[in-house]
Amino acid sequence: MWLTGDLGVTTRLDPWGHHAIEDYEKLIVEFGITSIDKLLAQYTVDHSYFTRRVIFGHRDLDSWLNAFSRGDKTAVLTGFMPSGYPHLGTAMVYEELKYFQKKGAFIKVAIADAEAYAVRRESRSDVIQRGFDFVVHAIAWGVDPERAEFYYQTEMPSSYYRLIQMFSRKITQAEMEAIYGDLAPAKVISALTQAADILHLQLDEFGGYKYVVVPVGVDQDPHIRLARDIADRFKSELGFERPASLYHRLIRGLDGNKMSKSRPEYAIHLNEPKELLEKKVMNALTGGRATAEEQRRLGGEPWKCTIFELYTYHLVKDDKQLEEIRQECITGRILCGACKKRALVLLMELLREHQDNLRDITERRVVEKVLKKPSF
Amino acid sequence: MWLTGDLGVTTRLDPWGHHAIEDYEKLIVEFGITSIDKLLAQYTVDHSYFTRRVIFGHRDLDSWLNAFSRGDKTAVLTGFMPSGYPHLGTAMVYEELKYFQKKGAFIKVAIADAEAYAVRRESRSDVIQRGFDFVVHAIAWGVDPERAEFYYQTEMPSSYYRLIQMFSRKITQAEMEAIYGDLAPAKVISALTQAADILHLQLDEFGGYKYVVVPVGVDQDPHIRLARDIADRFKSELGFERPASLYHRLIRGLDGNKMSKSRPEYAIHLNEPKELLEKKVMNALTGGRATAEEQRRLGGEPWKCTIFELYTYHLVKDDKQLEEIRQECITGRILCGACKKRALVLLMELLREHQDNLRDITERRVVEKVLKKPSF
Repeated sequence: MWLTGDLGVTTRLDPWGHHAIEDYEKLIVEFGITSIDKLLAQYTVDHSYFTRRVIFGHRDLDSWLNAFSRGDKTAVLTGFMPSGYPHLGTAMVYEELKYFQKKGAFIKVAIADAEAYAVRRESRSDVIQRGFDFVVHAIAWGVDPERAEFYYQTEMPSSYYRLIQMFSRKITQAEMEAIYGDLAPAKVISALTQAADILHLQLDEFGGYKYVVVPVGVDQDPHIRLARDIADRFKSELGFERPASLYHRLIRGLDGNKMSKSRPEYAIHLNEPKELLEKKVMNALTGGRATAEEQRRLGGEPWKCTIFELYTYHLVKDDKQLEEIRQECITGRILCGACKKRALVLLMELLREHQDNLRDITERRVVEKVLKKPSF
Repeated sequence: MWLTGDLGVTTRLDPWGHHAIEDYEKLIVEFGITSIDKLLAQYTVDHSYFTRRVIFGHRDLDSWLNAFSRGDKTAVLTGFMPSGYPHLGTAMVYEELKYFQKKGAFIKVAIADAEAYAVRRESRSDVIQRGFDFVVHAIAWGVDPERAEFYYQTEMPSSYYRLIQMFSRKITQAEMEAIYGDLAPAKVISALTQAADILHLQLDEFGGYKYVVVPVGVDQDPHIRLARDIADRFKSELGFERPASLYHRLIRGLDGNKMSKSRPEYAIHLNEPKELLEKKVMNALTGGRATAEEQRRLGGEPWKCTIFELYTYHLVKDDKQLEEIRQECITGRILCGACKKRALVLLMELLREHQDNLRDITERRVVEKVLKKPSF
């Protein structure tokens, strides 16, 4: 079962196989990320991302949860890079925001338009429009705009930028290079801007939220470490506390590599038209065997399967039902074609509902009311 | 005479001697700064800084003057680093601002508080207070606050910061290193912030001043070149024009080296008390000879003399009177002691008037009305 046990035990049962898990374990050991297991023994976090170890690690989430229980000012902050188009990986963050919001937490979302322009080299107008789309999709996914704030980095007031300039004093070139390797002015600015995203909520002007947790894909951990180091260095000057974080596994693309905006042919976008959806799902990499006979005899390997990943991350909320699907696979009772068709039905339903919401939100111009686009 | 002739001719007569002039010529040749001489043949610029070649070079000042004559939107922008305390070198910029303002130009002054904090490593509260003092002194020197704008870098609105982030995309690490040598994140941010200072006025939001001239000490030319390169690269995207600049010689400290905030014992500060003033002036490096006899016979060397520099930059407005002082010196008719006492009288008068204004402006809280201090 993937529902209990420490990471060592989970490892053997994890749907994504030993190889991937070894990497996540390495992250925990090398970067000092805390495994989620101990926390789950002490706190009730009732989203399947926790129980399934999709969220596998954190930093100081326990402190954040304690502050939240005490009724202290807590917030959840995350950011979106407005390049490409929102996909099922993006939706994992939407899902996390929705969960925390339902629990009553204050949500704030940065659109990293400064970074997208400078580092990804998109045009400003594209960046602005795409950032807007990311928010439209967040709300369509179920994030309540009434209890969340969204902002473009380049629309923030001066005190936010003052932080960037102040931070620059207490970070050395060597530290930046350790995080970003080859440095360019754009990367320096982007990194310090992200630190301002993570830390600005602690200022009184922005609500004085001393306990901030940042849910991110684990590839974003360097930014978290930078922000935590900076928080330490500005503890006396600005009264900063270290931000907390939680890390989810990265959803894979349908070819088994990382799902990424830069490889749209292997990603499932939230506005994917029905025909493309069918084609992508039917061509996806699975854990199937070379022949049907072999698969009936040996069973499939769901930990290798991108379709089983879709079930786990998005399509099946009920743990028992997910376990049944896994059993069908490993016992060879179902072959990949049929399994894909079942996934496709669930996926179409999920996205149809999402796209209906999207149309409604767009027509009612919901986002226009909560987010001002930059003038250039 | 220092009033006419091309730079080659001026060289021999220049009060600061061949050595310094060679350096200024080198700047003109190596960095493509345009000598002020041709411009003076075509335009009426009636401040002694021009006629005495204290302002010795420029970039595109002729275009700026043409735009000004046509009645196009023109502005003068400069910045002050709020470390140390305003001195007679600072007052050269005040003097230039006052001159352009009298001619009818719009003046804008940046307080480089972001840079002072990040690069000079001053405390934020010191930086904020010192920035304020630089503005108080500017107004006391005669800059009219009604027709000028002053701002702290860290108090600017988002569109200013957006520029910094945008600029970062089109500047490489190698270009930055060519300007700043050893790079640190603080230097990257400071340099791009200065570029935003120089270029932001061209945006409609800040008045759409397409013709901006930046009067600076020649040591600041790297910033000008960076801003001009950036302007070229954002010509199509933001409609930027290259900023113009003009360069004055650097006033020397009383020991003959550069007058600098970091060597206060050799600088004359604008709030210098009478006693210190006397001590500093009487100990100043002059162009005097080893003995009185020798000086009477050979005459002094005003081009080596920091006191003659004070006459030229600040104490004597009338060119004929300045030439008389020079003649007295080179013919040996006056010795340094007497000459210093004469300078001291003029300097005390200048600073007494300035300090009276300063008190008045402070009492009337003039600056509080035109400049908001940052909150942290």
